[in-house]
Amino acid sequence: MERTLIRELNTCVGTQVLIRGWVSVRRDQGKMVFCDVRDRSGMVQGIVLPISPAIEIAKEVTVESAVEVVGTINKRPEKNITADKQNGDIELSVESLTILNKAQTLPFDLDADLNLDTLLDNRPLMLHTERERDIFALQATVMQAYRNALIKREFTEFQAPALVGGDAEGGAAAFKVSYYNEMTAFLATSPQFYKELMVNAFERAFTIAKIFRGEKHATPRHLSELTQMDFEMGFIRDYHDVTRVLEEVVREVVVTAGEKHGGIFARFDTTLPLAPDPFPMLTLTEAQAIIRAEFKREIEDTSDMSPEDERQICEWARREKQSDFIFITGYPTKKRAFYTYEEPGKAPFSTGFDLLFRGLEINSGSQRMHDYDEMVARMQERDLDHEKFSFYLQGHKYGFPPHGGCSTGLERFTMKMLDLKNIREATAFPRDMNRIDMRLSS
Amino acid sequence: MERTLIRELNTCVGTQVLIRGWVSVRRDQGKMVFCDVRDRSGMVQGIVLPISPAIEIAKEVTVESAVEVVGTINKRPEKNITADKQNGDIELSVESLTILNKAQTLPFDLDADLNLDTLLDNRPLMLHTERERDIFALQATVMQAYRNALIKREFTEFQAPALVGGDAEGGAAAFKVSYYNEMTAFLATSPQFYKELMVNAFERAFTIAKIFRGEKHATPRHLSELTQMDFEMGFIRDYHDVTRVLEEVVREVVVTAGEKHGGIFARFDTTLPLAPDPFPMLTLTEAQAIIRAEFKREIEDTSDMSPEDERQICEWARREKQSDFIFITGYPTKKRAFYTYEEPGKAPFSTGFDLLFRGLEINSGSQRMHDYDEMVARMQERDLDHEKFSFYLQGHKYGFPPHGGCSTGLERFTMKMLDLKNIREATAFPRDMNRIDMRLSS
Repeated sequence: MERTLIRELNTCVGTQVLIRGWVSVRRDQGKMVFCDVRDRSGMVQGIVLPISPAIEIAKEVTVESAVEVVGTINKRPEKNITADKQNGDIELSVESLTILNKAQTLPFDLDADLNLDTLLDNRPLMLHTERERDIFALQATVMQAYRNALIKREFTEFQAPALVGGDAEGGAAAFKVSYYNEMTAFLATSPQFYKELMVNAFERAFTIAKIFRGEKHATPRHLSELTQMDFEMGFIRDYHDVTRVLEEVVREVVVTAGEKHGGIFARFDTTLPLAPDPFPMLTLTEAQAIIRAEFKREIEDTSDMSPEDERQICEWARREKQSDFIFITGYPTKKRAFYTYEEPGKAPFSTGFDLLFRGLEINSGSQRMHDYDEMVARMQERDLDHEKFSFYLQGHKYGFPPHGGCSTGLERFTMKMLDLKNIREATAFPRDMNRIDMRLSS
Repeated sequence: MERTLIRELNTCVGTQVLIRGWVSVRRDQGKMVFCDVRDRSGMVQGIVLPISPAIEIAKEVTVESAVEVVGTINKRPEKNITADKQNGDIELSVESLTILNKAQTLPFDLDADLNLDTLLDNRPLMLHTERERDIFALQATVMQAYRNALIKREFTEFQAPALVGGDAEGGAAAFKVSYYNEMTAFLATSPQFYKELMVNAFERAFTIAKIFRGEKHATPRHLSELTQMDFEMGFIRDYHDVTRVLEEVVREVVVTAGEKHGGIFARFDTTLPLAPDPFPMLTLTEAQAIIRAEFKREIEDTSDMSPEDERQICEWARREKQSDFIFITGYPTKKRAFYTYEEPGKAPFSTGFDLLFRGLEINSGSQRMHDYDEMVARMQERDLDHEKFSFYLQGHKYGFPPHGGCSTGLERFTMKMLDLKNIREATAFPRDMNRIDMRLSS
């Protein structure tokens, strides 16, 4: 008999079916056994009657075991119908139950309220739960919607390398790799140079790339390995061409998430993000003036946004602009990465921008330097040896158009979509100072 | 004036347009200058007449400079029409030419026949060429078509980590990473464990993941950093459920490549791969018997396919089965990864399979062990300490269904699609024993 997916069972009333899945709930009622089965398409309530040949196995099977079930689909008695639930009007009368793989006794109830370390130590087990499936199904949609939005706009995907020859940007602490012949390589802290170089091939390029940051951070918003959704585009007039594409892409991601995962947001006690057209945009100076006025406090650092600044300006944007997203522009050039273009006529301010989402920076971008001589001069200003950048500088030597781009953190975006408290919840297999799968012993 | 893309120029005869792109060809005819301009959408022939205000700049602009051009689109005289070429019936009479970024003199002609090291040392420059754009545009299509084919079949994408705690599979030489507090981490040689674990969440999962292999290989088919397209599926009956999905996915990738990049294959002096339904499938024993009979030679190793075996059986499959793809099955279990399931009733043979494409293995897969006790026993057989695999073994403990999957090398697939001689040609920024961007000094 062919397998039927559980979501199709409501069209099978009165017929015998074979399903495969996991035992989600088992309640032994003494004579009969209730046994709910879950597959990738949904859940159905199974009933094993005392006369069923499956009754012995039903008494022995454990929760989360993988099973194959043959049975007949019946309409439920009127009083047992739960109208708003998948298959709430049918039940499966189990005739045969085969255990494909028996689960050991679970170490705790899957709906227990676990602390973060216990959740992560048991991530493989916890992937059985609806909560974890919700998070990572949404994350999959975010990736594909982001890609589809860029492909529609004629961006070409490419693979940026994770192994690099030097800690090129100098800022982030790069992990060292023992390469061949006792040489040292590094893990990339950004796909920046490579996506810029791809502009000379395709004008518009993007990549979803792993990056690695060895800073000794232990915050709810930092990881040591993260996934960046990066794009870069050529022949721009100014950085607003970039912010415009970014906000269109983000809006499409949000709309797609709402269409495909409508139910998720209520389950996480949040709502689909507010993503108006256009997103509000403030300079750093304007944003901090608003914070001063609205939140009655002094700003310590006027050259950058603090985490508290980010939270408060987002609170303001949601209240005053009905937006969960806000762009901040007008950062001083000296506070941004060395390849950041200065805004013409607006020194010392740069073309750099950040996109904040529900209190957290999820994207950072700018127009980049395209002229060779200016780029070399900038490197010298920053005490970078331009000889070490000769591969990257081929872009500037050979016709980089004016170009810009940005980078969105997949895990931060997912985290804030569902109002999760810690970025590790939005990372299937997080790596940090204290964890690679299991907690590290120091 | 708004920018017009070059592919739209044939609808603009008689009107003034603004285009942006790179100078592809420049021929100074003394009085007038021919100046072809290329953007992401195509190429157009520009003519700068002696009376044009742009003539001085046209005499100075260099090939591959980024430019902005204003001019009028004219029909070409009948005798100058090249019918089979994009915009072969129009020309752009240039009225204004602005150099956005002047390219330095190229170190060699872009259509020169370069040796591989020179090509790779100059990859950023070479990305200006049609050949390089062809390769990486095709590669982008392969990735997205592969993903779309799996998403259509209800596979969920996830991010597998690149940093891992140990050289878990033991086989491949893993690169060591200096992690925090003088701990050592490793770069993943496969996303295997993680994609299996995702089966317990979604039944069907996939990832496009970077993997890293530190073997001292210096062949035309090995890289130190590569991109694997991996999927894994649960509740299979046997490994043929996996090969069936794989060949459907591969066929869809080939069809999509043909639709989107029809012209490429002729430019690379090859054809769209032959991908019949079904792909031919032979056991190792059958394949080597055919090689013995058809190619009149002895087989040295009957427990595995040699590179020469792979080439010859592919030659046979193309000739006899009109297929560029062929599955090989029936490998001895002891020659396969430790998590490979043995074929029931067929010991010592495993469920492992390889997919060969035009003479090269591009995919490897199998059914996997799902039972906890059998998995632990297998680890002991292979001298692996199962305590070190406790994270992975949560899958086996808690209800792994019978499952299997496979892994396709993106660069190998791209390489063979275009009959390239070296995998580095199909890798934008290849890493190997001797190269990270530039050649390494030893």
